[in-house]
Amino acid sequence: MFITFLTDFGLADDFVGTCHGVIKTIAPEAQIIDITHGIQPRQVLQGALVLANTIAYMPVGVHLAVVDPGVGTPRRPLALRDAAGRLYVGPDNGLLVPAAERCGGIVQAHELASPAYALASVSRTFHGRDLFAPAAAHLALGVGIEQLGPPVDPEALVRLAVPEPQLAGDRIEAIVLDVDRFGNVALNLTRDHLEQAGVRPGTRVELEHDGERFYAVTARTFGDAGRGDIVLYEDSYRNIAVAINRGNAAETLGVRQGAPVTIHLSLP
Amino acid sequence: MFITFLTDFGLADDFVGTCHGVIKTIAPEAQIIDITHGIQPRQVLQGALVLANTIAYMPVGVHLAVVDPGVGTPRRPLALRDAAGRLYVGPDNGLLVPAAERCGGIVQAHELASPAYALASVSRTFHGRDLFAPAAAHLALGVGIEQLGPPVDPEALVRLAVPEPQLAGDRIEAIVLDVDRFGNVALNLTRDHLEQAGVRPGTRVELEHDGERFYAVTARTFGDAGRGDIVLYEDSYRNIAVAINRGNAAETLGVRQGAPVTIHLSLP
Amino acid sequence: MFITFLTDFGLADDFVGTCHGVIKTIAPEAQIIDITHGIQPRQVLQGALVLANTIAYMPVGVHLAVVDPGVGTPRRPLALRDAAGRLYVGPDNGLLVPAAERCGGIVQAHELASPAYALASVSRTFHGRDLFAPAAAHLALGVGIEQLGPPVDPEALVRLAVPEPQLAGDRIEAIVLDVDRFGNVALNLTRDHLEQAGVRPGTRVELEHDGERFYAVTARTFGDAGRGDIVLYEDSYRNIAVAINRGNAAETLGVRQGAPVTIHLSLP
Repeated sequence: MFITFLTDFGLADDFVGTCHGVIKTIAPEAQIIDITHGIQPRQVLQGALVLANTIAYMPVGVHLAVVDPGVGTPRRPLALRDAAGRLYVGPDNGLLVPAAERCGGIVQAHELASPAYALASVSRTFHGRDLFAPAAAHLALGVGIEQLGPPVDPEALVRLAVPEPQLAGDRIEAIVLDVDRFGNVALNLTRDHLEQAGVRPGTRVELEHDGERFYAVTARTFGDAGRGDIVLYEDSYRNIAVAINRGNAAETLGVRQGAPVTIHLSLP
Repeated sequence: MFITFLTDFGLADDFVGTCHGVIKTIAPEAQIIDITHGIQPRQVLQGALVLANTIAYMPVGVHLAVVDPGVGTPRRPLALRDAAGRLYVGPDNGLLVPAAERCGGIVQAHELASPAYALASVSRTFHGRDLFAPAAAHLALGVGIEQLGPPVDPEALVRLAVPEPQLAGDRIEAIVLDVDRFGNVALNLTRDHLEQAGVRPGTRVELEHDGERFYAVTARTFGDAGRGDIVLYEDSYRNIAVAINRGNAAETLGVRQGAPVTIHLSLP
Repeated sequence: MFITFLTDFGLADDFVGTCHGVIKTIAPEAQIIDITHGIQPRQVLQGALVLANTIAYMPVGVHLAVVDPGVGTPRRPLALRDAAGRLYVGPDNGLLVPAAERCGGIVQAHELASPAYALASVSRTFHGRDLFAPAAAHLALGVGIEQLGPPVDPEALVRLAVPEPQLAGDRIEAIVLDVDRFGNVALNLTRDHLEQAGVRPGTRVELEHDGERFYAVTARTFGDAGRGDIVLYEDSYRNIAVAINRGNAAETLGVRQGAPVTIHLSLP
């Protein structure tokens, strides 16, 4: 059985390794796939989007995710099941919902409440280790989701607001969802939004951030542009993204996650 | 059989991956759990404390640890066995001892001396790859610890001095043991030290570092404090730690590993 | 079957984890060894050298490597087989060649062209996920290399120029190949180059970078030098490297990958 694992723990501390140890102690045969532990600290929305983007590439199994600024408060610990048979474990803060909805929707939700499937001593600050990792391991062993605790109405789960772009006349107001290692900048836009605004491949537009403006061209891939050109393209998760051919778009534009970017369609 | 693995190698270079390759070449069925490779370069004490804190969460197996500023000098390479049956491999610089002592103490120690259980060519600078990883892999295959080399008196092993806090009247002089990704600051203090000094949950204290003072409150969890409050709490490894609810305590206090922090108990 | 994996993806994003998911979905029993994902972005030469240096420490299997600034251009995707029976998957940009040549040379090369061994939808920007990882997984399952696509003449593959040092009278002009986490600086030099220039262990030389000069001593290991001494030694991959005993040579010299370093042999 596979357990995928996504957190904001980073790899400099022992948090991830300790959760691996807990899982392997309970379920020695479980195979763990680390999706990433590089979610920015406490950025639940970023974690939720990365989990939703990657879930289709993961084998069906238990999907453990912990981005949990509310640890130590009464936020619920959860296990979910989606229509495709995938199981999810994590906090009730919206982190798990977009992935489950991409896989047919949530068909079952339970609060983690049974001490039989947690460590003997549950700390107030590290539920990843003491509560979530053990629950995921027991699910991987074949424990039924309903054994973990009382059912929760899926409609009652916390949901995140995903920021929508604003399309207004000759401009689109977007937000940076993510910046990757190569400086590519994913926006909260899809090809549908661009088409709705009348933007076709090969169109020149202007990007504006913090008062500065940059010419860009809509293209199908980096290769369609010259070295150093700013390109607006559909990235591998079907978001519209900004890249610079062999350069770093985030540095050039001076943006990071959460930053507003305006796309001007009619050039002066 | 499980091999846990802790180093100061980081993940930007190939050091960790190369050791994995060596282990898997010798023992293809061994399962490797990376506790962390983010120990600060050459910080043996930090490595020893992280190994000791996490060992109870790891399945029983071979525990390979390499933080080894003395590589290339005559420091001994070691294999140990503790009273719980766990095996340890690493340098004789104190790194392995605190973990083994938390697991009932060292019952057997051997110097790694048999070339049969090392790579054919042992470099002067990368014993992790050439000496320690092969020894761990052979132990995982079932080779007896006494086959690795001559016995060493456990009393003769190098031991680290763990810095003790100073309790003096109305203040406690502590040291930062570790700063994690969230900026939480672990001190060389336990709840016993605080109780001894008469500090109870809910008490207000002052923290001092580098001439600056900060109000803090002792609490059981972040959730007991308001957003932005500085909290003194027992962390998930039972150290007293400093955190800021939804903030970064290390940045606010301006401390990093090894820094002195004074706790003033009687407020002016 | 083993799949080793080397990229410039870093670990902050989901790229590596997503490729793991793709591999495990196709070949659930394959064991993945991450050599490193810390190759500097788009540094094909660095990736090629690290793969070549580490290949001998890896079990025989499929060796997947992706450092691919040309993704989205017509550069060929490849699978290779070397004389030792190792299989390689990656872009035709020189990345795979030095490793295969260290293992007896390339005996078979095929372009990845069969859609049967790629994901159903291949993006223009993430061939690691959509093309290379699936091909590696299918090879690990036992698919023959010739099933992946048409043969390519091994002589026609892209090859990298590895920069050669210049030996001129009383000095050697070298280049920094790599800087590791400890600040050790690997040069494009071997012991043969030093011997050719008449440098013996224990010789004092001067290192020059950017107009600044530093005394150094050739030694067999860090331990032969005093704390703080600059040492020129043969590193664990048989490159001549610069280190400072318990210090950071790259910081002291002010160099990073690609920087020129002159070694002056006759001291003034």
